[in-house]
Amino acid sequence: MKTHTSYLTFNTKKRQEIIDITDEVEECRAAAGISEGFVLVSAMHISASVFVNDHEPGLWKDILDWLDEIAPWSPEKYRHNSGTGEDNAAAHLRSLTIGHEVIVPVTKGRLDFGPWQRVFYGEWDGRRAKRVILKAMGE
Amino acid sequence: MKTHTSYLTFNTKKRQEIIDITDEVEECRAAAGISEGFVLVSAMHISASVFVNDHEPGLWKDILDWLDEIAPWSPEKYRHNSGTGEDNAAAHLRSLTIGHEVIVPVTKGRLDFGPWQRVFYGEWDGRRAKRVILKAMGE
Amino acid sequence: MKTHTSYLTFNTKKRQEIIDITDEVEECRAAAGISEGFVLVSAMHISASVFVNDHEPGLWKDILDWLDEIAPWSPEKYRHNSGTGEDNAAAHLRSLTIGHEVIVPVTKGRLDFGPWQRVFYGEWDGRRAKRVILKAMGE
Repeated sequence: MKTHTSYLTFNTKKRQEIIDITDEVEECRAAAGISEGFVLVSAMHISASVFVNDHEPGLWKDILDWLDEIAPWSPEKYRHNSGTGEDNAAAHLRSLTIGHEVIVPVTKGRLDFGPWQRVFYGEWDGRRAKRVILKAMGE
Repeated sequence: MKTHTSYLTFNTKKRQEIIDITDEVEECRAAAGISEGFVLVSAMHISASVFVNDHEPGLWKDILDWLDEIAPWSPEKYRHNSGTGEDNAAAHLRSLTIGHEVIVPVTKGRLDFGPWQRVFYGEWDGRRAKRVILKAMGE
Repeated sequence: MKTHTSYLTFNTKKRQEIIDITDEVEECRAAAGISEGFVLVSAMHISASVFVNDHEPGLWKDILDWLDEIAPWSPEKYRHNSGTGEDNAAAHLRSLTIGHEVIVPVTKGRLDFGPWQRVFYGEWDGRRAKRVILKAMGE
C-alpha cells in the first residue's frame, strides 16, 4: 500500500470564490504512484467546501447565488456571530450544505471521472490563507 | 490490498428518479473478495447523486418534492442555462445538496450497515445513459 | 494494511442534539495503530448525520435552527409520515442535507485536521439508541 499527502493553500481576493483544483488532484495521484485506489480531497477549514461539478463559469455564479438563498450571509441572524465576534456563520452552513470533502477513485493510473466531472475548492470566507489536504492511498 | 471496480449504467424513463442499488454494491464487494475495507459508490455525472437512506417509496416522493423547493427547476433563473443552452442547472444544485458519493464500510465480509440503511442512485436529469462507479478496496 | 472497527452508541435526551466525537475518532485511529490512512466515521441510521465543523455552542444552535428552515419538522407535510406512522421525514431530509459520513485523513500518526476542525454526531431524531461506525484503514 502506498500513500502520499500534499497540501494546497489558497488566499482568495474575493470573499467567496470557486477554484478548479482537478490538476492538483492528478498531481497528488502521480506523486503517490498509484494506479488503483482513492484520493481524498478535503478542506481543512470549516467555512469552505470541496466538491465535484462542472467547469462552467455560469454555473459557478449560480452556486454562489443559490448558497446566498440557502444560508443568507445576514450576520445578525446567527448566534455564532454574536457570541464570537465573527460574522461568518453563513459560511459554516454553506460548508455543511455542499460538504467539505470528496473521494476521487483512481483506476488504471488515472482519476476515474465521468466526462464533465472536475474537482473544486469552494471558498465561502476567504481573503486569508486557507488549506486543502490531498491524500492518495492505493497501489 | 485488493481492489475491484465495476460500473452501473442507468437510463431512466422519468427525468427524476430514485433507484435502490444496494444489491449491486454487495456484488462489487463480493467480486473484490474483501472482508474488511470500503466500497466507494460515486455518480460519474454532475446532475445526479448517490446517497444512503430508507427503502420507503413515500420518502422517495418527499425527497423529490423537497429538492424542488431547495433548488427549483425554473430554467430561466440560472446563468448556467442561459450560457450553455442547457436547462438543468437545478439538477447540478441538487447533486451538490445531497452529494454524489458515499463510502460503505465492509466488516467481516458484509456491508456494515445499520438496520434501515440502503444505497440509492438519485437521478436528477435522466432519460439518457448515465453511470455510477463502484470501487472496493480492502483485504 | 491494517483495519480497525469500533462503534459508538448514543441515546440523546433531546430529539435533536449535536455531540463532539473527535476524541473517539482519535481512539479508533490509535487502536488501529495506523500512522497513514483514513478513518471513516459514518452514522448507521438514516435520521442522523456525521459532519466536520466548529466546537462552538452558538453555531450548534444556528445549525439546529437552520435545519428547521431547510427541512421543517411539519409532520403533515410528508408522505413518509402518512404512509408509515412515522413523524420523522424531516430528520431524513436533514441527514441528506448535511450527509451521514466523513473521511478523516491520518498523517504521521495523527488526525490531519486544520486548526478548528472537529467531528460531530448530529442527532435529528433521538431519544433512542443509535449507532455510529468508526473504521480505520491504513498502515
